Amino acid sequence: MAAINHITITATEMQRVFQSILIKHGFTNEKAKTCAQVFTENSIDGIYTHGVNRFPRFIEYMQKGYVDKDATPSLQNKFGGIEQWNGNCGPGILNAIHATGTATSLAQQFGIGCVALANTNHWMRGGTYGWQAAKAGYVFIGWTNTTALMPAWGATDAKLGNNPLVIALPYKDDAIVLDMAMSQYSFGAMEQAVIKQERLPVTGGYDSAGSLTTDPAAILRSKRPLPIGYWKGAGLSLLLDLLAAVLSGGLSAHQISAQQAEYGLSQVFIAIDISKLGSASAIAQLIQNIIDDYKRSAPASEKDTITWPGERVLAARAKNLVYGIPVVEAVWQQILEL
Amino acid sequence: MAAINHITITATEMQRVFQSILIKHGFTNEKAKTCAQVFTENSIDGIYTHGVNRFPRFIEYMQKGYVDKDATPSLQNKFGGIEQWNGNCGPGILNAIHATGTATSLAQQFGIGCVALANTNHWMRGGTYGWQAAKAGYVFIGWTNTTALMPAWGATDAKLGNNPLVIALPYKDDAIVLDMAMSQYSFGAMEQAVIKQERLPVTGGYDSAGSLTTDPAAILRSKRPLPIGYWKGAGLSLLLDLLAAVLSGGLSAHQISAQQAEYGLSQVFIAIDISKLGSASAIAQLIQNIIDDYKRSAPASEKDTITWPGERVLAARAKNLVYGIPVVEAVWQQILEL
Repeated sequence: MAAINHITITATEMQRVFQSILIKHGFTNEKAKTCAQVFTENSIDGIYTHGVNRFPRFIEYMQKGYVDKDATPSLQNKFGGIEQWNGNCGPGILNAIHATGTATSLAQQFGIGCVALANTNHWMRGGTYGWQAAKAGYVFIGWTNTTALMPAWGATDAKLGNNPLVIALPYKDDAIVLDMAMSQYSFGAMEQAVIKQERLPVTGGYDSAGSLTTDPAAILRSKRPLPIGYWKGAGLSLLLDLLAAVLSGGLSAHQISAQQAEYGLSQVFIAIDISKLGSASAIAQLIQNIIDDYKRSAPASEKDTITWPGERVLAARAKNLVYGIPVVEAVWQQILEL
Repeated sequence: MAAINHITITATEMQRVFQSILIKHGFTNEKAKTCAQVFTENSIDGIYTHGVNRFPRFIEYMQKGYVDKDATPSLQNKFGGIEQWNGNCGPGILNAIHATGTATSLAQQFGIGCVALANTNHWMRGGTYGWQAAKAGYVFIGWTNTTALMPAWGATDAKLGNNPLVIALPYKDDAIVLDMAMSQYSFGAMEQAVIKQERLPVTGGYDSAGSLTTDPAAILRSKRPLPIGYWKGAGLSLLLDLLAAVLSGGLSAHQISAQQAEYGLSQVFIAIDISKLGSASAIAQLIQNIIDDYKRSAPASEKDTITWPGERVLAARAKNLVYGIPVVEAVWQQILEL
């Protein structure tokens, strides 16, 4: 296998390049800045698959008309703390930031707010919106549906999305953010393991003979990735899709899968204003006590470290801000030509 | 191994026996009827672990003072669509029914409602409250924390609860109800497999050497059951505990685990009034389209059937209502002596 050449790009430079490309492609300054910032932040945080590596496809989807760069979300329906919005196929990042902000505003007003967003596009990293809400002081529960890429439990053909679920809450000056897809491994992670000639750490799906395997190439061939918790994650994926479609009045995985590409997604953003439930210091102490106990876990081996969801991301962030963001050279070259 | 003798009890008889025992132990007629009904319904639905098999421990916990049969929940805090209640260590079933009803009332008023309940007791089957809300026409998301029984990812000592999560929505005259704990298998399920001298269908935890195994006895010895999705379920369990404690102002898994028994739990009940989001028939059709596509899955083998969460329960319900509820004879004998 050929070695993959990495170069290092500073966050400032990445943001500048993304922003100028977006402006060149007709984005307003403000929208270009926000989208560039999210793609850059995702890269700083080490989520390259939904940062720098994904940027070219974002431009491609815009050029193909799946993403309407000028569209803004419009309110469809409203009752108390719940609102239905139409994303009008605008940029997924901008729609999701808007929906998260609206959910937190509703939470401020009603204690809890829910925005369901139909007809939107890939929000890139779900954690972005968890951090947005949690750093503003809110509890956040949100998810998106996706195209079908995973079979139901006991089936061989893809009917379920990986439907990432995000749960977040404020922690110190930052946030604890769980951002998990319903497939044990993404196709991207399995392709990466094939390139590196590695086995998966735990079973990630079935081979073509129907046996569970840690061989990523075999799973890519069978197209039967494993849901988290086997039948449990499959069930959770179905329910997340049902709720996303029902609450937003938008498309379900089976409809999204019938399209030529993944667009017109349905998403849910629930925010809870915990400042209404007690003093900030008491809540912070309650969270700290739970994390302190969790961190006192006995590691299984010397190489195990016990981390809470989001903690590794903060470590990547700290490192990449100092040393720059590692980028596959060919990817960066491709981006510079956009 | 000794064969386990089963007898068959009709639903009517089970309900009558439970109710009279509860009245004998000082429950009011109304509370006895409701608790007896839930224990019976859980048994009809085939969830024996949280139905008939659990009934003796419910009486025992009351006698030991963990469950205060006369306590009713009291409102602690309220803002818009979110309310904090104190369960006052009353019966978990009654507190959870009350909390679910309150969440649906809030949803009717505000579109979405959230009740966080501190200081409550085991709610038995979480699905009970999913059905309660969904059959009344609401989307439901709820969970409970529990005593710690599962290690963090990469750890060997129990810091995480199995924190069952329930997601439900109306379907036909019934409901689709996902009711899943964060451990791949419950200790009860693993003990059952040991008795039956069976291996687990998929890896359920670690043996004492730290290897993943399908040997239930080895997992019971190591006390290292596996979270669903490995690191993912561990993270989800932590977040569910954090949110349950923060939203209710109640105890976290680490505090519950420091007690002599599992009581004083924290729970969350979120209801969404979908009737505010569109016509009932349009929503029903949207759900039906998703389920129809899901059911068109290609089974992996002749013995595989593709079911949605709750479908198997409805099958058990139909069977047990006709043929009676299979009960371990020794368990029924023990109950008759309560």
